[in-house]
Amino acid sequence: MKKISGSKIEIKSKFKLTKHSLPIIYTPGVADLSLEIAKNKKKVYDLTWKKNGVAIVTDGSAVLGLGNLGPEAALPVMEGKAVLFRELGKVDAVPIVLGTQDPEKIVETVKAIAPGFGGINLEDISAPRCFEIEKRLIRELNIPVFHDDQHGTAIAVLAGLVNALKVVKKDIRAARIVISGAGAAGIAITRLLLKYGAKKIIVFDSRSPICLRCAYNKNNAKDEIVRFTNKKNFKGSLRKGLETADVFIGVSAPKLLQSEDIAKMNKNSIVFAMSNPVPEISFQEAKFGGAAVVATGRSDFPNQINNALVFPRLFRGALDTKTRFISDKIKIKAALAIAGLVKSPKNDRIIPEVLDEKVVGVVAKVFK
Amino acid sequence: MKKISGSKIEIKSKFKLTKHSLPIIYTPGVADLSLEIAKNKKKVYDLTWKKNGVAIVTDGSAVLGLGNLGPEAALPVMEGKAVLFRELGKVDAVPIVLGTQDPEKIVETVKAIAPGFGGINLEDISAPRCFEIEKRLIRELNIPVFHDDQHGTAIAVLAGLVNALKVVKKDIRAARIVISGAGAAGIAITRLLLKYGAKKIIVFDSRSPICLRCAYNKNNAKDEIVRFTNKKNFKGSLRKGLETADVFIGVSAPKLLQSEDIAKMNKNSIVFAMSNPVPEISFQEAKFGGAAVVATGRSDFPNQINNALVFPRLFRGALDTKTRFISDKIKIKAALAIAGLVKSPKNDRIIPEVLDEKVVGVVAKVFK
Repeated sequence: MKKISGSKIEIKSKFKLTKHSLPIIYTPGVADLSLEIAKNKKKVYDLTWKKNGVAIVTDGSAVLGLGNLGPEAALPVMEGKAVLFRELGKVDAVPIVLGTQDPEKIVETVKAIAPGFGGINLEDISAPRCFEIEKRLIRELNIPVFHDDQHGTAIAVLAGLVNALKVVKKDIRAARIVISGAGAAGIAITRLLLKYGAKKIIVFDSRSPICLRCAYNKNNAKDEIVRFTNKKNFKGSLRKGLETADVFIGVSAPKLLQSEDIAKMNKNSIVFAMSNPVPEISFQEAKFGGAAVVATGRSDFPNQINNALVFPRLFRGALDTKTRFISDKIKIKAALAIAGLVKSPKNDRIIPEVLDEKVVGVVAKVFK
Repeated sequence: MKKISGSKIEIKSKFKLTKHSLPIIYTPGVADLSLEIAKNKKKVYDLTWKKNGVAIVTDGSAVLGLGNLGPEAALPVMEGKAVLFRELGKVDAVPIVLGTQDPEKIVETVKAIAPGFGGINLEDISAPRCFEIEKRLIRELNIPVFHDDQHGTAIAVLAGLVNALKVVKKDIRAARIVISGAGAAGIAITRLLLKYGAKKIIVFDSRSPICLRCAYNKNNAKDEIVRFTNKKNFKGSLRKGLETADVFIGVSAPKLLQSEDIAKMNKNSIVFAMSNPVPEISFQEAKFGGAAVVATGRSDFPNQINNALVFPRLFRGALDTKTRFISDKIKIKAALAIAGLVKSPKNDRIIPEVLDEKVVGVVAKVFK
């Protein structure tokens, strides 16, 4: 694959600098704008890029699926995201990679830089730190704060799942759902599916199912999840848990499963294997195992479930409506709007293409 | 004057997003870049916009000459600067306006966001806080930190003064120099002129000359200045001080002087009245008072002395050479390089135009 070396984004002026425009763009002309905003702070939205600006903030603690690579190594990913923000949502997104991984300092830094932005996209911050950081920023800032690894993924999964369930004619309330991965994405997917009506979810972390008196790696988020999932307190392996499951959702690690595991799932099973770039099970193997609907995070197979479907469009809508809080209701509506773009869902067509230009319009409507 | 309402800058993608480019720009392709940087942190310069990126950081405590208007009101000015950075230095400059005016928190925030930038331009931070903040950041970061209100102004003034002294055939070591203003600009100008060889400087703040046992508003910077200026311990008024002065440099407040005050200066006097947008004395009045060379910060009169001459070009040079510290030697060389662009200085032509495209080349050479 061709590699892009060098920066992927740049800051452009909207105006040509001439002897005539210079005193308007800079001093003394710009003083009028400053005085206008000083008189009425809300004017900052009309008179600056705040209305269209998002900071993409990471501490580099969970870069893609690669681990704690630090802020410098996270920068190419954030630049890539900034490209998607621009091209898919017409948003001005600025990569901000932080030289600290202390949650308190992250919160303080984001609060300090917030006045110049219309929204904050948290990114690639490891769980469980990400939950507390996001919660505090949502509480303490008056602009939308959205941890994409959580909610972007959860919304994309729900969009795909709604259509996949249509294809196999199953009801989410009755479907037995196994989720592999209890990090940012796994927890957020679980929470959103519960909100949407799922009743039978079991979540696995890398050690065990999340269950009462189990040996999972405990944290506040998982302790919350255990109260609403795995009601029969299943304690076996992921493979065992898959037997009689209707849906598998993987946001965990490469190559966990084989076609035999899929074969033991209920008939008309749904497999979302989204570990990236190498999924929990390949598209072909899952199909071979008998899954009716298979999705991955990859663009080289059908049914790409990718948060890029969500974040540029969701921020477009939030910025245009000055929405301060992206509620679960908005998230579910956004998922349904995205799902709705596929008029007749089929096994290999449950979700729109990432580049589909119609997505931005339907997601933005959700905010109105 | 026409007003620009709305943002002046935008984030652009350098690449078109297609089904083909998406997996290169974003996942999975971008993972290779992250891994390369994780292995060798220095690669961040080759593989991201860090090599070309500057954060323009302000707390809004001294917006232009308008005072403490806060971060939101400072944003239009920072956007204007970002335009100049792009158009005059091809630099990607990101406005960062801070929701704190606590020096410790400012230092912490700038350090936290520094990994993603190749340089820090501090801006419109009030004196004397600006001195300590800059000093600490220079010490604690490994990228160049430059408070433009101090050094951009000082370099532009020195460039103009070198040529003005040529026009009137005076030597800086003998010239009696009166500086009105002991904020960021006044202090930095004083320090740089002393370094360049000036021997007879008196600095005035808004109350009094900086002198031993005077009633000036004391701070560390002024306490340092008092040791190297005003050796005869002059204690009179600004007007009185101007009598027998060769050079007046104003970075203070509008309309402090009248043509009679200029008339009392030595023959062939030089007047730089740079309070913006309204100078200490108008160009015409200073001329009428008999000044041989008059400069202001305005573009609508000859001899515009403006830091825009300096900062986009200086950062271009620093970024290209990965210079970590912009020393006094570099500052003086930059001033002389800018002055040198005016081949035969004349009363109304002591400094290049702000938009002169030759400036970037000569300033960048200073770093080699």
